[in-house]
Formats: sequence, C-alpha cells, structure tokens
Amino acid sequence: MPSLSAYKSDLDYSYATGAFPAVECLKHRKGSVRRILLHSKAAGTDLEQMMLDYADQLSVRAEQADRVLRMVSGKDNCFAAVVFEKFQDALNPDLPHVVLHHPSDFGNLGTILRTALGFGIHDIALIRPCADPFDPKVVRGSMGSLFRMRLHLFDDFAAYQELYPDHAMYPFMLDASRPMEEVLACGIPDRYALIFGNEGSGLPKEFSEVGQPVRIDSSTEVDSLNLSIAAGIGIYRFTHAGRA
Amino acid sequence: MPSLSAYKSDLDYSYATGAFPAVECLKHRKGSVRRILLHSKAAGTDLEQMMLDYADQLSVRAEQADRVLRMVSGKDNCFAAVVFEKFQDALNPDLPHVVLHHPSDFGNLGTILRTALGFGIHDIALIRPCADPFDPKVVRGSMGSLFRMRLHLFDDFAAYQELYPDHAMYPFMLDASRPMEEVLACGIPDRYALIFGNEGSGLPKEFSEVGQPVRIDSSTEVDSLNLSIAAGIGIYRFTHAGRA
Repeated sequence: MPSLSAYKSDLDYSYATGAFPAVECLKHRKGSVRRILLHSKAAGTDLEQMMLDYADQLSVRAEQADRVLRMVSGKDNCFAAVVFEKFQDALNPDLPHVVLHHPSDFGNLGTILRTALGFGIHDIALIRPCADPFDPKVVRGSMGSLFRMRLHLFDDFAAYQELYPDHAMYPFMLDASRPMEEVLACGIPDRYALIFGNEGSGLPKEFSEVGQPVRIDSSTEVDSLNLSIAAGIGIYRFTHAGRA
Repeated sequence: MPSLSAYKSDLDYSYATGAFPAVECLKHRKGSVRRILLHSKAAGTDLEQMMLDYADQLSVRAEQADRVLRMVSGKDNCFAAVVFEKFQDALNPDLPHVVLHHPSDFGNLGTILRTALGFGIHDIALIRPCADPFDPKVVRGSMGSLFRMRLHLFDDFAAYQELYPDHAMYPFMLDASRPMEEVLACGIPDRYALIFGNEGSGLPKEFSEVGQPVRIDSSTEVDSLNLSIAAGIGIYRFTHAGRA
C-alpha cells in the first residue's frame, strides 16, 4: 500500500476516524480493514492496547501516524483511525430498504444512516449523484453505523427498482396525495422501500407515479422539514407500524 | 445605535442573515427590527426593492454593509440581513411546549425550532446553560422559525415548572420505564411539555421523577439517536396523538 493521502472520493480506501467509529469498523468490517493508525499521544493507553490487539487478530499493521490523523480528521485530538477498503453489498431482498435519491449533505447522510440502523434497517441504496458515503465526515457522523449496514450505490433509480421488484415503494414527497398516517393505517408489507429526495429539491415529480407516494403533514408555517428529520419520522413510523 | 460588531452572545442584538430568515424577521418580529443591511451586489434587484419597502414601512434604516454581511454570515454571497433586538416572551400557558435542557449544538437547536414550528408548536423553553438561540447560525439553521415562536430562557428547570404547573411533563430519557407508543396510547392532555436533554449526556437522572418519562425504543446497535431526530420523532408523535 503506498503512502496515505488526504481523503479523496476517487481513492479505493477511506478512514474511520476516532475510537468509536474505528472500533465499529474493526468489529463489523474485518475483511475491509487495511491498516490501523495511532497517535503518539495514545502511547501507553488502553486505546493503544486495544488497537494493537485488533492489529494482531486481523493481521494488519498498526503504525504511528500523527500527521495523517490530523490531516484526515482535521483535529488535534484524534488518537486512532482505521484505514478501510471501500465496500458495496447486495441488499437483502427480503428486508425493508431506505433509498436516498441524490442526497448532497454529509451531515444528513451520516445522521440518516445512524437513524436507519437505530430502527433496525440495515439496507441502504444510494442513487447517484450523491454525497460520498465513505467520506470520513459521513463515517464519523454515522458513528460508524455504516460498518453494520449493507450499502449499494446505483446510477439511477430504475437500476435499483429492477433489482428489487417485490419491494413496495413509498416515495416521500411534499405534495403526495396521501398522508403517511393514512397509508400506515392500511398496513404495510414486509418488503418495502422508503425513498427520500435531495435536501433542496426533494424527489423529481416522476416519483408521483412510483408505488404509493406519502407526505408528512406539517404546518404551512414552514416550507418543509429538514431531510434527516423527515427521514427519521418516516423510518420510525414504518418500522413501528402494523403489517398488511 | 453604535457601529455594528461581529456577533457575540452578550450583545443585545443579533443578525438574521440571508433573504429568507431576514424576511421572516421583518414579517413576524416587526417590533424587534433595528436596521436592514444590504450588499452592494443587491443593487437594482427585487431583493433590494423589497428590503427598502420594509425599511420604509417599519421606519428603520437600510444601509449598504458589505463588510458586516461578510463578517456575520461568513459568506461572500449573503446579500441581505436584518439587525434585530433579542426578545423573550411568556409562553402560552394553554398550549404544548417544547423544553430543551442544556442543548449545546447550534445546528440541533435551529433544526428543533424548525421542526417544532413545522408541527404547530410555538412555545419553546430553554434551560441554561444552552447554545445561544440568537446566534446567527441558529437563526439561519431555523430558517427564521425563531421569529414566529415564543421563546423563554430559564436558569433552571424548577423555574420553568413553577410557571407552568398545569403542564403534563414528558421527559425523554433513554432508560425511561415506558415506551412512547404506550404512553401515547393512553391519550395525552391538551397542556403538555416535551423535555429533551443535552446531546451528549441526555437528561439528568432526577428527571425520572418528573411527570411521565418516555423512551423511544431503538436497536441496541446504536448508542442513542441524534438529539434532533429524537426530538423530531417525539414532537411528530405527540402532535398527531389522540387526546386524553
């Protein structure tokens, strides 16, 4: 492996910075771990010992890399990171999915990953163009949730839909004809996909012909809800709803 | 009014930066508007005309202030802002409240204000120490929602509780004995307060003796939900629930 560089989206590896995300990667994506980085200030700490144990167990190198840690975390107090190979997985065809269409904000993406995992959804489809899910800011924002999930990137929504024809599709749209609570009251199938659009523009209007569009009713006093809030409410409600 | 300075929390005024938040302030907090700032690049635009009309209508000064706009927004493309006097209001004793105990993150605070307004809650109590709700970052993050709400800061929770003894209190706690859905199923009164703790530490354990603590059930795969997500789900569910 050549010398480590600042993160760029065209690299085939990225960084899980900070002890918590790093350990999530070491526990749940063992096969993707390439190297462990430690700060000289971690010398003699429990963190260092734990990281050295993982290095041993996974047969990867652990090295002191103060400069790289600072560069990829943007912080002086990041004491550990894992260099990991990017991954993609087939989604589980029998479980619910969250589909994010053109999400552009790193913070929202990390938060939505963490929320989906929090409510037991492990399968995430991202439709390009989208914020890079492997950017260290997303990995950190997700608190390492990424490493417990199956993630697949698609060039367009049709490619996703073709692979999972049995999923009931629920696009979330501001002007959808049915409110979410009414749709939930009818019961929902075991296989479904919750589809959320871009922060600024939402889903394109073609999605009004896809599956059963739903809206989250809100006051006319706000334009729209924040994307991660709308996704959080949608994911919570669907994962707590009665089955059809 | 002396010359404008960079925002500091001990000033008695702040800035609503960007056209949308500025207009929210001009429409909904007329009495707090002190001055309108315009960028030289806005000359001849509809935005400038609208701002000059408001200046006229509210009898305040509009001035060109490129340097101040850049300083308070941190951006080169902020073309308008309103300088407003900070305000506080008595909360409406007959309506639901959201109480934020020691929130520390500007982004979360802005998002929670916007979400509360989105679900029709206009009354917000903040328990100090807390992120400054008048910081331009919060104002902007709330998309100006702040100007449509009643906001009151308290030195401690007891001071809030004393003023609103008739509100049913619902502290959101990770280890609360009852899940939210069970509490909702019993119906809730017209006057209630949803109480959320700090991003990192949640609510202190004393809150387990306050009203009816509730938890949002989530997977053991995540430590906790993001604060603004938990608040979003709680506010959505309570504002859509049946009445006791």
